[in-house]
Amino acid sequence: FLDELRRLQISVSVDGVDRLIRSHGHTLHDIFVLREGTFERIPDVVAWPDCHDAVVKLVQLAQKHDVVIIPFGGGTSVSGAVSCPPEESRTILALDTSQNRILWLDQENLVACCECGIVGQDLERELRQQGFTSGHEPDSYEFSSLGGWVATRASGMKKNVYGNIEDLLVHVRMVTPTGVLEKSCQVPRMSCGPDFNHIILGSEGTLGVITEVIIKVRPLPQCKKYGSIVFPNFESGLQSMREIAKQRCQPASIRLMDNEQFQFGQTLRPVPGYFGLLLEGLKKIYITKIKGFDVNQMCVTTLVFEGDAKEVELQEKRIYEIAAKYGGIPAGEKNGERGYTLTFVIAYIRDLALEYDIVAESFETSVAWDRTLSLCCNVKHRLKKECEAAGIKHYLIMCRVTQTYDVGSCVYFYFAFKWNGVGNPLATYEHLEHLARDEILASGGSLSHHHGIGKLRSRWFPSQVSKLGVELYQATKRQLDPKNIFGNGNINNLHL
Amino acid sequence: FLDELRRLQISVSVDGVDRLIRSHGHTLHDIFVLREGTFERIPDVVAWPDCHDAVVKLVQLAQKHDVVIIPFGGGTSVSGAVSCPPEESRTILALDTSQNRILWLDQENLVACCECGIVGQDLERELRQQGFTSGHEPDSYEFSSLGGWVATRASGMKKNVYGNIEDLLVHVRMVTPTGVLEKSCQVPRMSCGPDFNHIILGSEGTLGVITEVIIKVRPLPQCKKYGSIVFPNFESGLQSMREIAKQRCQPASIRLMDNEQFQFGQTLRPVPGYFGLLLEGLKKIYITKIKGFDVNQMCVTTLVFEGDAKEVELQEKRIYEIAAKYGGIPAGEKNGERGYTLTFVIAYIRDLALEYDIVAESFETSVAWDRTLSLCCNVKHRLKKECEAAGIKHYLIMCRVTQTYDVGSCVYFYFAFKWNGVGNPLATYEHLEHLARDEILASGGSLSHHHGIGKLRSRWFPSQVSKLGVELYQATKRQLDPKNIFGNGNINNLHL
Repeated sequence: FLDELRRLQISVSVDGVDRLIRSHGHTLHDIFVLREGTFERIPDVVAWPDCHDAVVKLVQLAQKHDVVIIPFGGGTSVSGAVSCPPEESRTILALDTSQNRILWLDQENLVACCECGIVGQDLERELRQQGFTSGHEPDSYEFSSLGGWVATRASGMKKNVYGNIEDLLVHVRMVTPTGVLEKSCQVPRMSCGPDFNHIILGSEGTLGVITEVIIKVRPLPQCKKYGSIVFPNFESGLQSMREIAKQRCQPASIRLMDNEQFQFGQTLRPVPGYFGLLLEGLKKIYITKIKGFDVNQMCVTTLVFEGDAKEVELQEKRIYEIAAKYGGIPAGEKNGERGYTLTFVIAYIRDLALEYDIVAESFETSVAWDRTLSLCCNVKHRLKKECEAAGIKHYLIMCRVTQTYDVGSCVYFYFAFKWNGVGNPLATYEHLEHLARDEILASGGSLSHHHGIGKLRSRWFPSQVSKLGVELYQATKRQLDPKNIFGNGNINNLHL
Repeated sequence: FLDELRRLQISVSVDGVDRLIRSHGHTLHDIFVLREGTFERIPDVVAWPDCHDAVVKLVQLAQKHDVVIIPFGGGTSVSGAVSCPPEESRTILALDTSQNRILWLDQENLVACCECGIVGQDLERELRQQGFTSGHEPDSYEFSSLGGWVATRASGMKKNVYGNIEDLLVHVRMVTPTGVLEKSCQVPRMSCGPDFNHIILGSEGTLGVITEVIIKVRPLPQCKKYGSIVFPNFESGLQSMREIAKQRCQPASIRLMDNEQFQFGQTLRPVPGYFGLLLEGLKKIYITKIKGFDVNQMCVTTLVFEGDAKEVELQEKRIYEIAAKYGGIPAGEKNGERGYTLTFVIAYIRDLALEYDIVAESFETSVAWDRTLSLCCNVKHRLKKECEAAGIKHYLIMCRVTQTYDVGSCVYFYFAFKWNGVGNPLATYEHLEHLARDEILASGGSLSHHHGIGKLRSRWFPSQVSKLGVELYQATKRQLDPKNIFGNGNINNLHL
């Protein structure tokens, strides 16, 4: 198999480090094992096919030799999607999506054809040089890849302007063991039977590997501006968000942090200079003393505006007006920018926290508007109760509403605890997250808003899509990958 | 079978007229046969199940007795979707989707749960009474049903504000011979593996029957306003549309009629009073004499604005500014309203035209922006050439760009000819439309933008979705409907 791969001029490696790097994503489990233990199973070989045709040949070869392929992009998965099933006895090849060029940019139709391996920040840098942006900005966009975005059905923080990945996607090619799945035209919309693009979206590397994607691009916005609003409590912030969504005047990004996260964010601020300190102090006095906000209740909404200058101005006006009705007070651009970048920082903090015996992880869901508040309360309450029952003394549970839609929102939870004294911190964390997910589903939330299912959430898949949905997924799998070459065990691991 | 149906208290009929009404849609072929001949095959029985559970029982019974089910909604299909395959030897039951209630309206989450049989105008009337609208307005909305919209992946004229049917759909139940396909939650968006809603959308009654749909609704707009713009020629109108789409300031509806349709529309105007005549005359003089527009070149864009008053004002300003750059002159609200309603009228005219030996039909496509102009020219040129070759003396070919997106547009063609002297008008028309479709595909257009495939376009399905796409469709069919109970032969008739 290796010889045949090399004869096709596909780069391969069986080096331990190359394989180890591609054996995990970014779940707490992955990071923990990486620090404390050893992986049960890592890929046996890594390959770097350099174009669509090379991938086609590689997949045919794997099919012939019964070799398992696990596509590996940015490695930022938080669902266990790229880890190897320990019980897999066949050779496992990590297909590193090293193809990362922009093949062409069409400025008239505003689309770009990209290879799947391109990472968010590279894509943006290259598009910006030509005056464009994809606008897709998931928290992980510094490292995650276009192919991964499609495979997991990713959401970007600026989806209100640019759309989520399914809105950005115009055309996609997926190489499966039985052939290449793609459409014959690149048009804005069509009505040609069932839309198999939506089978590729969310397939999580179980049906084939995505090689090329044509995505929409937009001219760079004239104007970019941050903003923030302080609310007396979470409920008023949420009501304001609902009204803004109802009136459909959401800016590129609008996010509401709960009080715990707001306070946590305050502790992470860079040390301000004398003048800054004074200003912040005055603002704080105004908000807490004069407006009577309770520091242990108040919440903050961060805003990112993008568009032409007039549009942004109008949007700002409308949003601050709506917020005022719910007691919201503008809290400045600097706080908005800090709040927005906090997300990127949190990913780095988690690893640091482990040094201090703290395990931490995030998980997300989507939920209808009228259930958003109760879902947040239920999950926090449940986790508190379970922490106490498990004898955990120091823990932190916070949440944030990160996306708004006509009919509901996306909620992100952050959960951390200090594990000295707790027997098996990893097992304890996983048990608690499991219970939190049950609580989410019982509160009307979905299994995932944009992280996908992977292995971590596969036990709940049948309950989400009905018996028939599982059977349809399995029929799809049988058709495209009858030998289970793409046998990473994501979504629904019954087929192993 | 009939006895068992009756025992389930499902209304049935074997009356000839009941059956005939449900034997056809609105293609030229259907209307022609209805006037001039007889249908080769009509349903043997009509049933009116009155709720989701009754449909489940009916489908089980059909599965048991090997009876074919053809779901029948508004009967406005223009793709042959509801006609019976002549070679079908089994009993055919027309499932009339008479379930047409709004089951509930949730004003907080802005969603309504509706039975599939509700017709556009009924849905709108009931929602309006409570201050809401779905905003879905296909040309056929007076007669077409919600279930049909989902099954064919319909587009509405006001999709810029409200979205196409896939954007409106939050939850859907489809009854198949192997069970009910649906998700377990009603959330704004999720990432839970492949999205089977997109298998239901566009399934055209071949996989099951849709029974209930939860759709988004919006509060009624504060302000509704029409508008129109005259352009010196089609190209300048198109460039203006492209710029408006690029800047994403499209109003609820924006449509560009070509010169032929513009002139045709003029002949359909109600007789104006003296003052109106004068005004129109003055305007015409201004446009043709002072601005130097050529009556045989000029085109008109019709606009529908919906939103709050300020938004509409801002949108008008931006659009007329952009249009002016391309030589566009505002031509008043009245012309806009007339142009918009012309669509509804055309459907009625077609039947009238038959009285005068004129066959007429429309067909649509979607295409990238930079190919829109050449596609329109190619198709018109091809049809002219073919008409002349066929000895047709009087014909009319006109087109309209009806929808705009970031990356392209939807184009609608109208084709009519006078058939005295032509041997078989129906066969001639179908031959010519077939050639026009080949030309559309060769010009980079899609097989359909929103009319679906039906039987009329099934020959092109394999070339649109790749070999693997066809196999995936067939695998889906085998899984959900192994006995081909939903055997109407749409999309891909190889499974009969």
